[in-house]
Amino acid sequence: MQAARLHEYTEEMSEALTVEEIDRPELERSDHVLVEVAGAGWCQTDNHVIEGMWTEYVPQELPMTLGHENAGVVAEVGEEVTLVEEGDPVICHPVQTCGICRPCRLGEDMYCENSAFNGLTTDGGFAEYLQTNERAVIPLPDSVDPTEIAPHADAGITAYHAAKKAVRELNPGDTAVVVGIGGLGHIGLQCLEAMSAADVVAVDIKDEALELAERLGATHTVNSSEEDLAQVVDDLTDGGGVQQILDFVGSDETAGYGTEIAAAGADQHVIGYGGHIHEPCQALVDGELSLKGTLVGRYAELQELVALVDRDLVELHTSRYDLGEINDVAEALEHGEIEGRAVILPP
Amino acid sequence: MQAARLHEYTEEMSEALTVEEIDRPELERSDHVLVEVAGAGWCQTDNHVIEGMWTEYVPQELPMTLGHENAGVVAEVGEEVTLVEEGDPVICHPVQTCGICRPCRLGEDMYCENSAFNGLTTDGGFAEYLQTNERAVIPLPDSVDPTEIAPHADAGITAYHAAKKAVRELNPGDTAVVVGIGGLGHIGLQCLEAMSAADVVAVDIKDEALELAERLGATHTVNSSEEDLAQVVDDLTDGGGVQQILDFVGSDETAGYGTEIAAAGADQHVIGYGGHIHEPCQALVDGELSLKGTLVGRYAELQELVALVDRDLVELHTSRYDLGEINDVAEALEHGEIEGRAVILPP
Amino acid sequence: MQAARLHEYTEEMSEALTVEEIDRPELERSDHVLVEVAGAGWCQTDNHVIEGMWTEYVPQELPMTLGHENAGVVAEVGEEVTLVEEGDPVICHPVQTCGICRPCRLGEDMYCENSAFNGLTTDGGFAEYLQTNERAVIPLPDSVDPTEIAPHADAGITAYHAAKKAVRELNPGDTAVVVGIGGLGHIGLQCLEAMSAADVVAVDIKDEALELAERLGATHTVNSSEEDLAQVVDDLTDGGGVQQILDFVGSDETAGYGTEIAAAGADQHVIGYGGHIHEPCQALVDGELSLKGTLVGRYAELQELVALVDRDLVELHTSRYDLGEINDVAEALEHGEIEGRAVILPP
Amino acid sequence: MQAARLHEYTEEMSEALTVEEIDRPELERSDHVLVEVAGAGWCQTDNHVIEGMWTEYVPQELPMTLGHENAGVVAEVGEEVTLVEEGDPVICHPVQTCGICRPCRLGEDMYCENSAFNGLTTDGGFAEYLQTNERAVIPLPDSVDPTEIAPHADAGITAYHAAKKAVRELNPGDTAVVVGIGGLGHIGLQCLEAMSAADVVAVDIKDEALELAERLGATHTVNSSEEDLAQVVDDLTDGGGVQQILDFVGSDETAGYGTEIAAAGADQHVIGYGGHIHEPCQALVDGELSLKGTLVGRYAELQELVALVDRDLVELHTSRYDLGEINDVAEALEHGEIEGRAVILPP
Ligand SMILES: [Zn+2]
Ligand SMILES: [Zn+2]
Ligand SMILES: [Zn+2]
Ligand SMILES: [Zn+2]
Ligand SMILES: [Zn+2]
Ligand SMILES: [Zn+2]
Ligand SMILES: [Zn+2]
Ligand SMILES: [Zn+2]
Ligand SMILES: [Zn+2]
Ligand SMILES: [Zn+2]
Repeated sequence: MQAARLHEYTEEMSEALTVEEIDRPELERSDHVLVEVAGAGWCQTDNHVIEGMWTEYVPQELPMTLGHENAGVVAEVGEEVTLVEEGDPVICHPVQTCGICRPCRLGEDMYCENSAFNGLTTDGGFAEYLQTNERAVIPLPDSVDPTEIAPHADAGITAYHAAKKAVRELNPGDTAVVVGIGGLGHIGLQCLEAMSAADVVAVDIKDEALELAERLGATHTVNSSEEDLAQVVDDLTDGGGVQQILDFVGSDETAGYGTEIAAAGADQHVIGYGGHIHEPCQALVDGELSLKGTLVGRYAELQELVALVDRDLVELHTSRYDLGEINDVAEALEHGEIEGRAVILPP
Repeated sequence: MQAARLHEYTEEMSEALTVEEIDRPELERSDHVLVEVAGAGWCQTDNHVIEGMWTEYVPQELPMTLGHENAGVVAEVGEEVTLVEEGDPVICHPVQTCGICRPCRLGEDMYCENSAFNGLTTDGGFAEYLQTNERAVIPLPDSVDPTEIAPHADAGITAYHAAKKAVRELNPGDTAVVVGIGGLGHIGLQCLEAMSAADVVAVDIKDEALELAERLGATHTVNSSEEDLAQVVDDLTDGGGVQQILDFVGSDETAGYGTEIAAAGADQHVIGYGGHIHEPCQALVDGELSLKGTLVGRYAELQELVALVDRDLVELHTSRYDLGEINDVAEALEHGEIEGRAVILPP
Repeated sequence: MQAARLHEYTEEMSEALTVEEIDRPELERSDHVLVEVAGAGWCQTDNHVIEGMWTEYVPQELPMTLGHENAGVVAEVGEEVTLVEEGDPVICHPVQTCGICRPCRLGEDMYCENSAFNGLTTDGGFAEYLQTNERAVIPLPDSVDPTEIAPHADAGITAYHAAKKAVRELNPGDTAVVVGIGGLGHIGLQCLEAMSAADVVAVDIKDEALELAERLGATHTVNSSEEDLAQVVDDLTDGGGVQQILDFVGSDETAGYGTEIAAAGADQHVIGYGGHIHEPCQALVDGELSLKGTLVGRYAELQELVALVDRDLVELHTSRYDLGEINDVAEALEHGEIEGRAVILPP
Repeated sequence: MQAARLHEYTEEMSEALTVEEIDRPELERSDHVLVEVAGAGWCQTDNHVIEGMWTEYVPQELPMTLGHENAGVVAEVGEEVTLVEEGDPVICHPVQTCGICRPCRLGEDMYCENSAFNGLTTDGGFAEYLQTNERAVIPLPDSVDPTEIAPHADAGITAYHAAKKAVRELNPGDTAVVVGIGGLGHIGLQCLEAMSAADVVAVDIKDEALELAERLGATHTVNSSEEDLAQVVDDLTDGGGVQQILDFVGSDETAGYGTEIAAAGADQHVIGYGGHIHEPCQALVDGELSLKGTLVGRYAELQELVALVDRDLVELHTSRYDLGEINDVAEALEHGEIEGRAVILPP
């Protein structure tokens, strides 16, 4: 089968992956599931993997097929699989968990001690077929198109996971700030709208992004390259500050927003990454600010996100590309030139 | 009356405060309470106030009587006070709150929008008398000596507040790390012991502090100037890491412990301050680490801490000094030479 | 001033209250507030008070002016009041709390140990003026009409309080059941819609009520006098049952719904009352069903509800009556003949 | 192998089960585990199963080997099992879960949609061997004797599960009431002591049970056949009532304790069963009392309980019997004549 693989870490996106012919994966365990990929979202994390930025955090062996945002149709199942059968459309949670370790038993899929992460620690879905397991697939309702929903497998669930944590702390009359209305942020914004009655301030440096935010329900928009965010927030909240910040950018600058615009007891959810946090401890102590790292989300949360999509409460902006164009996509995202979320279509 | 007052910010502790004669405070509101001070704890925060380190966080006008850890006996009450009367022994929550703003209505005393903080934004208790209000005093049970309990008004409640947040996330079999077994840390450790069944690892650079920790129930102790904390934790937890970190030190070094020893989904409570946090966003994202600033605690939490003291579940190590020795105490704490918690006794 | 007062408990609604001339209340404390009433909602609880049904639960002295759902304009304030001043439009939380007892300090206004409940334990607002206190009034935004919002002071906040508890447990894909789409239920339904993405099943015995529910966003409606609720729920949830039940009726029959339609781990919120719960303990044990009594709501929750109203997320159906018609209203509600929520207008 | 089996529902305990020779179970799935039983606790639920009291709640086919509180040594494992191997000592969570359904993914083992419950819906452990699965076994530390810990598989985890829910709501200074200091209650009491600093009132009708409670740390004991519980609680709590009630009895009488002794906002955990709840809805509404059914506990909670046992924080009183004496045990428990917890030893 065709697959787009990384052979060497590089800063050069235009030649990052090699599209080549490899063997179709074989099912080796009774709970394995083979999925014929209908679509695979391209993600900022793919760029980070190519740059070698994950080598100190997770075990990685090259060459590896990238792609962790997959949906498709079940092609084959292990002998003890009961949840799905051949022909079922599914979305694939990116992490294949064991179901046995203590984190798994607590529902904390992302902390599984025996997991494989598609396209990060094991072969992913920029390919015709993806091997995953029963605990990683979610059957799709008829209303949902696998190609269209693919990016939700990571972009969607990551945004949903952060939004769900924020919603728990948001009351009517409170304000949330969404920083970065891109692939993840525009989903996070919709999740906040669907699950809370809080006011939402959308922050970006592109006016089109802010127009999208407005259309998706943002109460206010701020172009942070032109306006002083701290001042705007101060005006909007009568000096009180905001209760929740969802930072989908994670630059040096946005990482510092919490100390400028947060109400007492607020959370800043650190979702995007790339930049640094640099604050005096006292800046967190005064006002009891929390900086909360957040990473993908649970299997059960992806079920909940599928329910939102099924009810038309979350829409996703995608643009489609062939597998052969994959390095162009990598390059384009690096320069912020992808409209919506790129979905790669295998041949 | 006699009071120890700050006239100018300075790095020179040995001459920081002036003990002088000022007017006894007058009660101006129907809810005011005048307390004859029986003891006032000296705190690292007093050193920080003297250095001017709080000027950019709170409004401060000099000269000001310092002292935010007070207990004593009610000397006079405003006309609508019902909770206490003349002669009642009380401990004083350091913050005089309004009871009217939204944070007050949510029980979030520390976030009150109309508050006065003894010894930080208004005159405190290094004096014969302290003016406070009905919402800031807690009647003491007979078993408790006001002079002895005074430091709990801030050191105690700050430690309790952080420990209570940690306990909510600690299950039997989990591990908590207490960094710094000083005035706050030795209380935090006892709160963890009283309210959870988690294993507790005590970290300090002084062996006497670690001996105290052991006597107070710590499961393990680590002298971080001699042992490699990350290695010790790795061994103790079979590579799993710890669930909760309570950093009572807040130096550049301790602020980084979370990324070295935390289990997935862990919290590092930032309690001590003075140092900086400096981490890549990715270090928080991977493993979903949270850095949570924490500041003093609620009035209701001070009630709970008094209940612990009343049940002999938390003991406090104090050494007593006269008001005239106050600058010696400031100097001694700066050099880590105070044994237990210093309590200043007014004349 | 004119006031509608209860002199004797009775089952006879048509002569329950006496409209008579009494003295306008005097402010006696520094935090007292006198409100000129713009509207006062009539409530099922008023019928229950008239019947003497609250005598074994709270202290009550007759004669008493009824009326606990009030809004109006501040006419006079005690000397230490800062939150409002003469002329400010306000809604009145029905409970005047002390701000000093431990429940108050925890934000639990309903559990205050020194409270007065308008129209239940002290004179209420079926009158020209109502005496309340600073901790019970919430300033209204300009967009909100005091007469129109009055019933939210109890009907609204009670529904909001229950809905907020339910929302905390409701994920997308889950189902909530609202039993009784009357004065409270139609607000509860809107609160669920505004703050969650769960499916909502509305249950009533009147078709007009169900039409209203549908218009307000209910996913499904069930006329329980014609359809078998358990069967409908079974079909809708593939046999899984519902996660949250909000029972605004509280009859013998509705009190038993939980054991018929609940998913494992579900909550049945007991809001309406009048009937009995009668279940074997085993019926709660198997499936871990919780029956949760719920009563009015916190001051901070009424702030949140005002924010929802201000954002047009909750609408209220009212019909207006003069103070002189008050016994007709009592009689009509007893027979289920009030359209929307009745609001009494003082002369 | 020898097994004690139920062939017919009966009220006659002395002849309830037949000890007979049946085939040793065969492993049929890759995750199956065969355990050589070292001990099997006898439980009030076994009496209830014999009486047919569970037939309307779960599917049951006779004959069936009873016994749901098991520990022993792994005798054989399915081919994909990695958690344990032959020779490992284990305790058996009573429910074999699927790991695939949504409740399993949320960590809610007791709500699994594809589960088998040892001795309740499938053959249990009053036998030489028990077939279970990888998701139901927990490896034991060396310090723990399988025979001795067996009853924790249900009695222990049920008590722990309820205690853990209660602890979340218990602050220092609060009071919990434990009703029934028998097989479950004496464990629940120890869990409360280990994980909270609340005062604990133990209630029973036998003085020996109360002596045990006192030795295990109860703050107060009440013989409810001699003393007026409501009066005692009123005195102990200055009229405030208790925050948490754990009812391990579940009789008509104890089910009503909540409305007599609860503080506002309290929970009554319904753990024991047999009796009925009969209350006016208003009794729950006034004071916001919650009645919370609770059933066994999660796998992760059994891990936590094993950690408590390993740290000597929970002790268990057992008396041992041969398999041939099993009907005598059934009869004796029915008359309250078992000292501690009965453990059946297979031949
Ligand atoms: Zn991604
Ligand atoms: Zn796992
Ligand atoms: Zn730096
Ligand atoms: Zn201090
Ligand atoms: Zn305030
Ligand atoms: Zn009402
Ligand atoms: Zn109060
Ligand atoms: Zn049992
Ligand atoms: Zn399951
Ligand atoms: Zn009955």
